[in-house]
Amino acid sequence: MKKLMNSPEDAVSEALQGMAYCNPDLEYFPKEEILARKREPTAARVGVIAAGGGGHEPSNAGCVGPGLLDAAVVGSVFAFPEAASILRGIRQADYGQGVLLVLQNYSGTVMNARVAMEEAQRAGIPVEMVVVGDDTAVPASAAGRRGVAGSILVQKIACAAAAAGYPLAAARDVTEKAAANLRTAGVVLTSCTLPGAGQPVFELGPGEMETGTGICGEPGTGRQPLRPAQEIAAQMLEQIFQDRDYTGQEVAVLVNGLGGTPPIELYIMNCELQQLLEERGVRVYRTVVGSLVTALDTAGCSFTLMEVDEELKPLLDAPCRSLALRN
Amino acid sequence: MKKLMNSPEDAVSEALQGMAYCNPDLEYFPKEEILARKREPTAARVGVIAAGGGGHEPSNAGCVGPGLLDAAVVGSVFAFPEAASILRGIRQADYGQGVLLVLQNYSGTVMNARVAMEEAQRAGIPVEMVVVGDDTAVPASAAGRRGVAGSILVQKIACAAAAAGYPLAAARDVTEKAAANLRTAGVVLTSCTLPGAGQPVFELGPGEMETGTGICGEPGTGRQPLRPAQEIAAQMLEQIFQDRDYTGQEVAVLVNGLGGTPPIELYIMNCELQQLLEERGVRVYRTVVGSLVTALDTAGCSFTLMEVDEELKPLLDAPCRSLALRN
Repeated sequence: MKKLMNSPEDAVSEALQGMAYCNPDLEYFPKEEILARKREPTAARVGVIAAGGGGHEPSNAGCVGPGLLDAAVVGSVFAFPEAASILRGIRQADYGQGVLLVLQNYSGTVMNARVAMEEAQRAGIPVEMVVVGDDTAVPASAAGRRGVAGSILVQKIACAAAAAGYPLAAARDVTEKAAANLRTAGVVLTSCTLPGAGQPVFELGPGEMETGTGICGEPGTGRQPLRPAQEIAAQMLEQIFQDRDYTGQEVAVLVNGLGGTPPIELYIMNCELQQLLEERGVRVYRTVVGSLVTALDTAGCSFTLMEVDEELKPLLDAPCRSLALRN
Repeated sequence: MKKLMNSPEDAVSEALQGMAYCNPDLEYFPKEEILARKREPTAARVGVIAAGGGGHEPSNAGCVGPGLLDAAVVGSVFAFPEAASILRGIRQADYGQGVLLVLQNYSGTVMNARVAMEEAQRAGIPVEMVVVGDDTAVPASAAGRRGVAGSILVQKIACAAAAAGYPLAAARDVTEKAAANLRTAGVVLTSCTLPGAGQPVFELGPGEMETGTGICGEPGTGRQPLRPAQEIAAQMLEQIFQDRDYTGQEVAVLVNGLGGTPPIELYIMNCELQQLLEERGVRVYRTVVGSLVTALDTAGCSFTLMEVDEELKPLLDAPCRSLALRN
């Protein structure tokens, strides 16, 4: 519950500033809480931006750079960004070929993104939006599923398509395909503590874990006894397969840490996952392990699978350079 | 204290296996606990390996790859590797031009590395060793200072020199220069819990932090009240400057997380550090932020500064590709 922080209200903006300091090619706009690439003088391609809450760092802001996002528009901790800020992000990414927005499905973000999108369209900027809902803990419904860590892989596809010269509609289509191929399941051992709060959002006993949590500190769908990594991995994968059977398919894998889980545990979980995937006849094309989409200091992790085909593979492999993802 | 783990004794080997699964160009040798690059068929250059305890992942094993280490020899959690394993690592990295060992200064590792080095030399493999002692919490003494996170930067220099064709003695010399230019200071908010143990190695109260800790769970040199990030950053930098004044110099910066600290806090600490460095007239050439050298689930971070010159800069910038570091 102890944090390396100053005031709770400055946490996200100081983190974004701290990210900008790592790379002189990044620009930080404090008013709108945007981390952006510096404008490319000669680009003529689709621009891609992401928008979402803060507290998930590195997340979207960590994926700004060549071959990746033009800008990340970031809200306060677990809060959606303003429509005006998203509009500013769209303008930053506009190179005359339209702008693609990639969002995790949270209603406030999607609502404000829609307002910004319509305003941009009125100003003559074509905008398309892909909303990622990969969380298998939530039943697929009319409102759509919550978006969690898998959005990072979908963004990579969107940005690589833009860099490869896909027109806006085609970039949207391949991004939709990536989103449709994506499923995530997660587990939490210790809930996060909001900045300034003295207690975790929800309490778990020393021998308990929570399944079906999101990435905004919300409690999950079930509480279970903590078990060995192997059994937890099997259960997470089974949750994914109950929703979508990847048997015989080729996939990209993301093992994502939620902020408080050390790398040694993420690699142990990856070890278990890879063995389980082999047993199930799933071929792994590429694996990423890291704390990429976090929920403050939450201890836990998620597994994401994304089926890849001959169009998605080269986009996944295309060069990119950011604080969180590099090829 | 809860962990995503199976048995405590398998934690390091499963993590190394989990790392090997991320990259088909890596080989894992379970008997010796070595993560290595596959042998390059046509290489004729100095080989570089690192050896040290486990529990620090990604650390050395995360820095195996093109432009980086040929092999990482890893002990059990916070325990030094066997001499026979280090010798196996030396053989793996031997391309006929000699092998450079880069070690953090811990007596057991250095002792076993010396045994392995002498045996390799008897077998006709020239070996040089650079021991990194960057921890400013420990007085410089005959036994030398403890090596902590800064070793990652020194390894990068060693490996880039080898890739650039430096002969063994020259590669050792530039690596020694990097090590001499290096200082680290850290702070811990919550001690780690050893696998299988129910309690942290040492207890800190909710409003306390510990300074001068190493990366093996050992208690530090002083206990203080937890303060805002800005004040902690100033104190850590002052500890470094008390030891070596970087005023007017150009430096590489590493803000390293100790395993349990989320990225948002590391970037906040980087924000503070960069502002303090500017105030002190230190020019920042390059900044790396991440949980690269951890101590299991320890919450805390360290700052490392390394003065860079016209020889070190291109070596720092040279292409490299591994799980933890990429240019």
